[in-house]
Amino acid sequence: MEPLLHQLGQRIIRCAPRTLICRKYTHGNGNGADHPSTGSSHTTPVLLVSRLYQPANLREVGQESRQAGEMTCKSQRLMQQAGLIHPSNPGCYYYLPATVRAMEKLVRLIDQEMQGIGGQKLDMPSLCSAELWRSSERWDLMGKELFRLQDRHGVDYCLGPTHEEAVTTLVAHQASLSYRQLPILLYQITRKFRDEPKPRFGLLRGREFYMKDMYSFDVSEEAARHTYDSVCQAYGRLFSRLGLRCLRVQADAGNIGGTLSHEFQLPADIGEDRLLVCGGCSFAANEETLAPGETDCPRCPAGPLAESKGIEVGHTFYLGAKYSRVFNATFSNQQNRPVVSEMGCYGLGVTRILAAAVEVMSTEEAIRWPGLLAPYQVCVVPPKKGSKGSEEGAAQTEGLVHALQGGLPRLRGEVVLDDRTQMTIGRRLKDAVRLGYPYVVVVGQGAQEETPRFEVICQQTDETMFLSKDQLVDLLGRVETV
Amino acid sequence: MEPLLHQLGQRIIRCAPRTLICRKYTHGNGNGADHPSTGSSHTTPVLLVSRLYQPANLREVGQESRQAGEMTCKSQRLMQQAGLIHPSNPGCYYYLPATVRAMEKLVRLIDQEMQGIGGQKLDMPSLCSAELWRSSERWDLMGKELFRLQDRHGVDYCLGPTHEEAVTTLVAHQASLSYRQLPILLYQITRKFRDEPKPRFGLLRGREFYMKDMYSFDVSEEAARHTYDSVCQAYGRLFSRLGLRCLRVQADAGNIGGTLSHEFQLPADIGEDRLLVCGGCSFAANEETLAPGETDCPRCPAGPLAESKGIEVGHTFYLGAKYSRVFNATFSNQQNRPVVSEMGCYGLGVTRILAAAVEVMSTEEAIRWPGLLAPYQVCVVPPKKGSKGSEEGAAQTEGLVHALQGGLPRLRGEVVLDDRTQMTIGRRLKDAVRLGYPYVVVVGQGAQEETPRFEVICQQTDETMFLSKDQLVDLLGRVETV
Ligand SMILES: [Zn+2]
Ligand SMILES: [Zn+2]
Repeated sequence: MEPLLHQLGQRIIRCAPRTLICRKYTHGNGNGADHPSTGSSHTTPVLLVSRLYQPANLREVGQESRQAGEMTCKSQRLMQQAGLIHPSNPGCYYYLPATVRAMEKLVRLIDQEMQGIGGQKLDMPSLCSAELWRSSERWDLMGKELFRLQDRHGVDYCLGPTHEEAVTTLVAHQASLSYRQLPILLYQITRKFRDEPKPRFGLLRGREFYMKDMYSFDVSEEAARHTYDSVCQAYGRLFSRLGLRCLRVQADAGNIGGTLSHEFQLPADIGEDRLLVCGGCSFAANEETLAPGETDCPRCPAGPLAESKGIEVGHTFYLGAKYSRVFNATFSNQQNRPVVSEMGCYGLGVTRILAAAVEVMSTEEAIRWPGLLAPYQVCVVPPKKGSKGSEEGAAQTEGLVHALQGGLPRLRGEVVLDDRTQMTIGRRLKDAVRLGYPYVVVVGQGAQEETPRFEVICQQTDETMFLSKDQLVDLLGRVETV
Repeated sequence: MEPLLHQLGQRIIRCAPRTLICRKYTHGNGNGADHPSTGSSHTTPVLLVSRLYQPANLREVGQESRQAGEMTCKSQRLMQQAGLIHPSNPGCYYYLPATVRAMEKLVRLIDQEMQGIGGQKLDMPSLCSAELWRSSERWDLMGKELFRLQDRHGVDYCLGPTHEEAVTTLVAHQASLSYRQLPILLYQITRKFRDEPKPRFGLLRGREFYMKDMYSFDVSEEAARHTYDSVCQAYGRLFSRLGLRCLRVQADAGNIGGTLSHEFQLPADIGEDRLLVCGGCSFAANEETLAPGETDCPRCPAGPLAESKGIEVGHTFYLGAKYSRVFNATFSNQQNRPVVSEMGCYGLGVTRILAAAVEVMSTEEAIRWPGLLAPYQVCVVPPKKGSKGSEEGAAQTEGLVHALQGGLPRLRGEVVLDDRTQMTIGRRLKDAVRLGYPYVVVVGQGAQEETPRFEVICQQTDETMFLSKDQLVDLLGRVETV
């Protein structure tokens, strides 16, 4: 008789040739009351590794793609080898399905934090007219970093790398804005364009990338600084939820303008920014903001600042009236007189955070994600087809997956089954370790004992445990998802 | 003593000046175990109409914005007047917060349906190299509809209106693709660009728009046609869930290429496509696919076809090997020989579906949404400040909102409170009717009776009911959300 798991594999192929999932493994009767048309939203499919457009499949791309750009850093190499990204034009990448999942999680986190401080999400055009950018004088200032084009009528546009002009014009159009309605915090999470002279480091310095850009409008400098602080605090919470150590660093405002600016930097050797950090207080600064030779902390007597390198993942600017004056973005004050609003702008590099997290958390050989961002939380590895005990292993796998589906709705879509049972457990485990699933569950010898035990590798903590099904369900029930 | 509701209004401003919400109205203790940093994800904020960057605030824009483009159709007029969109450059719009909410819901629905048939979501660059587009000969074919630009090195790019070239190159890179791994269905939901000669009708024919584009790779024509059918069925389910009558119409393949093509059309007077529809069978065709003078149904003897106009919201193409041959996208067959894959491509106009739904469902004066897409499901309208019984009304409102928050987690973020209590109920009700909340709850005279009754207007069905709090919670508990 054929091992059960092999039969299972065939049933998987037979029952859902084009859906990546096996209905066998779905929970519920598949005709949920409020989603009668497909079972997809109310059942919990198990995704099959063999059918994911990602992991092992693209493994060989690692070599070829060196053509399209040097493998300039660890995150780029790991992400390309794992089939997370694939190079296109210089500085442009395909984000493959697992990366899209990670990015959607990051977007949900950012939405929570931005909406938690009153941010409202909108979406502004990528095509920005030259006229608009000439008003702020940035059409000339930005030089070659702007992608420029003409439409069929010969009108000049740029592809927006940032949207101060666009959002200020929008708010200026609102004729009857009252001081009671301020602050207004508007943000978007969209693709941005910048014609980098040297695109490199994968998603860390691309020419197309996703950015969260928020813009605030306040009644006074005091109120604007209050908003500025609340955004910085939200950034702090975001990085803390991601488990990333992030430095808030005094920064130069560059060509965005304004008088107060901070960068949010993840310390990393490949970082392109040079930072000076005090060991005695929270002072940290981008080197370019300090006078040459300034090596002592200006805030405390701790003495010389330590040098560090960082990857900039966020940037905040207090803009004052730089843009609001140009575009006449005013509100009516208590005396019903028009007053120019005080602005701030606040960026987060969305795709850059993904790559920077991989850069700082991974080993040279294995990807590690912030737990909340991992594309899938759990990978289940059943025994090799035809190996000793593979029948019982298949049955245990089935029972386990049912238990996870039935008991843990939060893990919906988060569990993958490595059905490549023509491969040994060891080889698949190596893949799973390399790809960085936070929890890898191996259905090995222990599953055949009288009280079956599953081997669970918690990759975030590097712990290995042998747990019963109930203990495992209990453990995974505590996994945080977003 | 001041009416309670007025105090409530002040407390709202005081307790959350910058968060649109009142903590008073949040459910739970605000320190949810797995989101300790902000209360936002585990509490259910009530959004205050006075602070939404949308409804009444931008009301006057309706007039001004005629400059930026004619109000060429009902959906454009209604959406601009309601503060859902705001014109930018010709054919380019700001999507304001309520529109972003509706679009995110539509994206979730599309994700469910596409993933339900095995679609995997990726994200491809907007910048497409001329080299790639010359390979398929579309660089010349597309003429002025392509936005073209050069980077700082003088290399030619276009902004992708569609991604057959890009996705086929990607799949072609996968050296070891086996027949066992097919079909592969890859899709993205991203911003697309097309330099329309006459952008008009608001989001219906823009130069920047969001599109879902899916691409399929199959082992044979038979398998590809099977995939084609399953995508068409998924489209059918999507429109049915939206409550939109959609015709599947025989279509011309245009410059995408291929031999089999259908459009998904919403019948509407302002539709730019002329359709011929049979009354006796399911045959329907775009006029341009029929021979001149062909007026009888080719499939049944029902006789002459009826003319109709339609808005194209989806388009499917069976491509055969048109692109896969050019880019050498092959797989290994059972004999381990390379075979060119059979492709299909499948578009859905995401922003166009939003506008088309508003176009076909709304009256001249009032927006109506497909229930699942409405930006907010419920609007609660408390009494005017200082009016007779406004104290009791405020207390009733508070109790009601608590009950909704506590009892209906699915309505999280879906309930807005029209706190503009300086306005009469009637005036706010008129706004609510115009904006198309599926459920408007008025806390009026009935709320002061011994058994308080709330007036509930179900705008989808045009019914008005007077319900107790429990009945109302029961009704709203059955609201479907996505
Ligand atoms: Zn110090
Ligand atoms: Zn007929």
